[in-house]
Amino acid sequence: MTLSDELRISIDGKWRHVREQSRKELAEMDLLFDHDLTLDEARERVLEQMKKLIPTGIPAAGFSVKAGGTGDPGMAVTGISMLAQFDLSLMVKAGVQWGLFGGAIENLGTQSHHDAYIKDLINLDILGCFAMTETGHGSDVQSLETTATYDPATQEFVINSPTPSSRKDYIGGAAQHATVGAVFAQLITKGEQHGVHCFVVPLRDATGKDLPGVTTSDDGHKGGLGAVDNGRLMFDQVRIPRENLLNRYGQVDEGGTYSSPIDNSNRRFFTMLGTLIRGRVSVGGSASAACEVALSIAGRYALKRRQFGPSPDQEVLLMDYRMHQRRLLPLIARSYAYRFAQNQLVARMDSLQTADHPDPLKARELEGRAAGLKAAQTWHATEAIQEAREACGGAGYLAENRLTTLKGDTDVFTTFEGDNHVLFQLVAKELLTSYASEVGGLDPVGLVKFAAATATDVVKERTAASQLIQRLIDARSGKDDDHDLLDRGTQLGLFEEREQHVIETAARRLRRAGKDPEQAFAVFNAAQDHVIRCGRVHIQRVVLEAFTAGIARCEDPEAQDLLRDVCSLYALTEIESDLAWFMGHNRISDARAKTVTSLVNDLLDKLRPHTLALVEGFGVPESSLGAEMLLTEGQS
Amino acid sequence: MTLSDELRISIDGKWRHVREQSRKELAEMDLLFDHDLTLDEARERVLEQMKKLIPTGIPAAGFSVKAGGTGDPGMAVTGISMLAQFDLSLMVKAGVQWGLFGGAIENLGTQSHHDAYIKDLINLDILGCFAMTETGHGSDVQSLETTATYDPATQEFVINSPTPSSRKDYIGGAAQHATVGAVFAQLITKGEQHGVHCFVVPLRDATGKDLPGVTTSDDGHKGGLGAVDNGRLMFDQVRIPRENLLNRYGQVDEGGTYSSPIDNSNRRFFTMLGTLIRGRVSVGGSASAACEVALSIAGRYALKRRQFGPSPDQEVLLMDYRMHQRRLLPLIARSYAYRFAQNQLVARMDSLQTADHPDPLKARELEGRAAGLKAAQTWHATEAIQEAREACGGAGYLAENRLTTLKGDTDVFTTFEGDNHVLFQLVAKELLTSYASEVGGLDPVGLVKFAAATATDVVKERTAASQLIQRLIDARSGKDDDHDLLDRGTQLGLFEEREQHVIETAARRLRRAGKDPEQAFAVFNAAQDHVIRCGRVHIQRVVLEAFTAGIARCEDPEAQDLLRDVCSLYALTEIESDLAWFMGHNRISDARAKTVTSLVNDLLDKLRPHTLALVEGFGVPESSLGAEMLLTEGQS
Repeated sequence: MTLSDELRISIDGKWRHVREQSRKELAEMDLLFDHDLTLDEARERVLEQMKKLIPTGIPAAGFSVKAGGTGDPGMAVTGISMLAQFDLSLMVKAGVQWGLFGGAIENLGTQSHHDAYIKDLINLDILGCFAMTETGHGSDVQSLETTATYDPATQEFVINSPTPSSRKDYIGGAAQHATVGAVFAQLITKGEQHGVHCFVVPLRDATGKDLPGVTTSDDGHKGGLGAVDNGRLMFDQVRIPRENLLNRYGQVDEGGTYSSPIDNSNRRFFTMLGTLIRGRVSVGGSASAACEVALSIAGRYALKRRQFGPSPDQEVLLMDYRMHQRRLLPLIARSYAYRFAQNQLVARMDSLQTADHPDPLKARELEGRAAGLKAAQTWHATEAIQEAREACGGAGYLAENRLTTLKGDTDVFTTFEGDNHVLFQLVAKELLTSYASEVGGLDPVGLVKFAAATATDVVKERTAASQLIQRLIDARSGKDDDHDLLDRGTQLGLFEEREQHVIETAARRLRRAGKDPEQAFAVFNAAQDHVIRCGRVHIQRVVLEAFTAGIARCEDPEAQDLLRDVCSLYALTEIESDLAWFMGHNRISDARAKTVTSLVNDLLDKLRPHTLALVEGFGVPESSLGAEMLLTEGQS
Repeated sequence: MTLSDELRISIDGKWRHVREQSRKELAEMDLLFDHDLTLDEARERVLEQMKKLIPTGIPAAGFSVKAGGTGDPGMAVTGISMLAQFDLSLMVKAGVQWGLFGGAIENLGTQSHHDAYIKDLINLDILGCFAMTETGHGSDVQSLETTATYDPATQEFVINSPTPSSRKDYIGGAAQHATVGAVFAQLITKGEQHGVHCFVVPLRDATGKDLPGVTTSDDGHKGGLGAVDNGRLMFDQVRIPRENLLNRYGQVDEGGTYSSPIDNSNRRFFTMLGTLIRGRVSVGGSASAACEVALSIAGRYALKRRQFGPSPDQEVLLMDYRMHQRRLLPLIARSYAYRFAQNQLVARMDSLQTADHPDPLKARELEGRAAGLKAAQTWHATEAIQEAREACGGAGYLAENRLTTLKGDTDVFTTFEGDNHVLFQLVAKELLTSYASEVGGLDPVGLVKFAAATATDVVKERTAASQLIQRLIDARSGKDDDHDLLDRGTQLGLFEEREQHVIETAARRLRRAGKDPEQAFAVFNAAQDHVIRCGRVHIQRVVLEAFTAGIARCEDPEAQDLLRDVCSLYALTEIESDLAWFMGHNRISDARAKTVTSLVNDLLDKLRPHTLALVEGFGVPESSLGAEMLLTEGQS
């Protein structure tokens, strides 16, 4: 086996068979986006492509055996992410149908809903959408305005859009394909509001016409995802049977009495949201997968394209330029890092979701991890795909070379499934409140309140292999601020100490707030950049630990050596970008700080000969590289 | 007059009348891009739009009176940049026709060419393209492969594409509209090669069919600029009359003897390229103009959209969040900074280009400045438009809200008119070689050679108002590393000292190289990131000085006060992002460094109430904001 095979095996993780299967089967399906199609044609085509996915088993994997699936959540999210390497519109359409819509039916519904919908939605006999976001509220789901008012006279819920801002918006499938929606609305019965619940609402008849009281419209052209029919929904007193409430966490009886297994309405809401975690895991994984395609294209181009050099007849490969190495290799290293972190996340999610009695504390922790990694991976994708485009110059700007499509398609990933800043804030909240079980959600005041009460002893949980990590940290040598920066224990120690310090000082600031909501908000707001930084440095630590653990599991010595350098490049470039902090807080001496850049450059020299192996290690199928310039470029 | 009027006047600069005229006239022309059109329809529409521009006088302004224009280069580039606020395809088409193609005819041709083409190209009776870049060579223009071989028997040049990589590529107009090209090719006569020259080559007949020997093709869809017909050209022994050589800097007589007013072929080449500087000035200005639109949209949205807050009935404006201020205000400040720098650049360019005897040294300096500002402004646009998109969440992803189109359209600006890294390298070269008049261009070995010989006494030239700058620097108080960071003199001193240090140390590294080209290349390459950093910190200093000088010229006290804070925000966020350097080089003490972030936050608090005035100050016409979400958003 070649070095790139060993790398691929090592980063493919537990669902390697799904990746391998996808690489083979998807490559045969002609999935790449066609820019010559009209909006309607592109939407039609992606629907046909979805049908081809059914026999792969990926759609069914996302549902438990009891509900009508095959019960392999790890396969489901891995499979969805693999679609991102071919076409992100297809990935999003699949994610909406089987992940979000199907996930809502399974996780928020009960047996009768499973019986009624799951088989059909797996087979695309029902096309659904996930109608959560409204024009007025996105990340703040608790403030949605759509109402579902129970009418005991007819035993129906009345779904209504009371204001222009209550319009459901950006909903994938709403413009054209969806015949039914999982619609989130404030449940009202007997004059009392019980918070956001999810309802199955028929939207269109068999001919595609809006049902009475439903008004759908089209979001039209977007920055990408050209085959996804995002649209809007307005409801004018639409009546649905009482049974269409997905009633796992809240039920209304015939007479209109509300009941729920979870008394606290805040906790109920976040428990419901928590079951939908798979969306974030899929988005993060897909962003990374798309990003790997872009880096594979730019890396290969840099190994083919020559410009300038010592003399006109000695032109130099782009990849041999220091600056080009600087641009691409740290991003490749970070993609490796995120792959390990994502694999770990998927494995934890899978084991929680297939457990008979999942640990609620672990579930909470996983939600934070998924939110943070989603933010980190999607921002990384935005940055890396942009850099890959620029690194291919004019050729990179042509649609035939795929990079601009990857950029446009993934651009919204930093926004959907929660705005990234809000998600990092969520991570911070989990950290600052030490996972206090009463809270959840995103409102700033709650954060301040609970940080004030409980924030102590942070940075407790570690990734897997915590003993290994501790051993490495203990083994570092040197004075406090003068450790060897290439030593893994030093790097891990720096990341951990930084996290601890950033969280502790944030907690101290927040504790100053009193109980008055406005004052609490003001205190939170003055510290918001600090709070968000908590989430960011936490995730960097988690990722470094996952990488370290992943290297320990690699069985091929040559690949393991290479991964060690890649991991150091990841760690050192993250340190370099936050160097002022490490210096100012006496974690790295001024003298040592001056060596960081040359250490990075040394690593670039070491990794340069392995560029091809590294991008091949991502395992992006030839057909999804699809870049004309890699084939036809005359100059070489 | 309102504060925003005063701001607008102050940043509109010398060609304020052109900006005001464009805001009014262009707004009436229905120029915004229509995503529903096919490629062909969009191309056809932009051509019609170009015709409407003729009466504005902007096309004619770019040409001297002698050549058939009205002789107002400042108006020409300002007018082109204003197009960027409406539609970037139109800006690029106009820039290609009147700036690049027309500019080549005027600047590289002589009277007979002016007589033959200029009037007609101003009026669009001739549609041209600028055929420089090839598939194999972009930024390295000296290595172009297309040949123009003189045949004395027929007194013709034979234009030929000898290799697949010699294909002209990404050429605006080549796919469809251009009937004639300004084609760059290696001039060969009597068996000798005399370097790259420019030739007028007819491409298509009146029906649009390729002329014999010419093969045009289409670059198809791109990441943006959907109405620009970029394409490719191949020449198979195409014969053109001897007179079609644009012969200002090189002539071939009937018998085939080559002559030139500039003996040194390297210097000749860079003199020719230097005359084309207007392209870079226009691209930088247009990137900034587009960026101002994006920031205006995102700023206005943040002043309208509310999310979360102390309680559900007290939702808070996005703009009141610390993090949102952090995201947008520093970018707005940088846009103000670049506007002042761009105004200064345009004024210098205008006075040089309208001078009877332009100073060649000043021309060289201007080329460096234009290259560096183009790089800085286009990267800023990429970053700021991306941030603006994300700051508007899902709404920001819809084409109807313009941000994604601005992003896609400007994305290639970091590449064209020279890759930004190569351009910063060019700036560095000018600095490192103290404007040694023998060199120019981009090859690394030349840089090393001349840095070794001459680099001393750098950072000599200042922006205008150098006395003011010096006075401010002299007036700062405090110890070496403990000045007041809000003091303008301190900021200017820090930027200047950093530039000096970075350039001196780069020169020292390069001097180690010997004369062997391969060794020289290796030395250059090991220092490439350092070399590019020279260009970057130089431009930051130039921009801060231009901002400082601009504030001094502002006549309204209130606007002046506000601009002072905006300037400090620009300076401090640039310092913050390079803080480790200032700390490590004892320019800012550890204690002082810890205050930078809170100083920035204080400035954000001060500027927050002026957000609307600041974005209105950009003077983006309502119609080109065009964002649906600003009109229809229900929530408020």
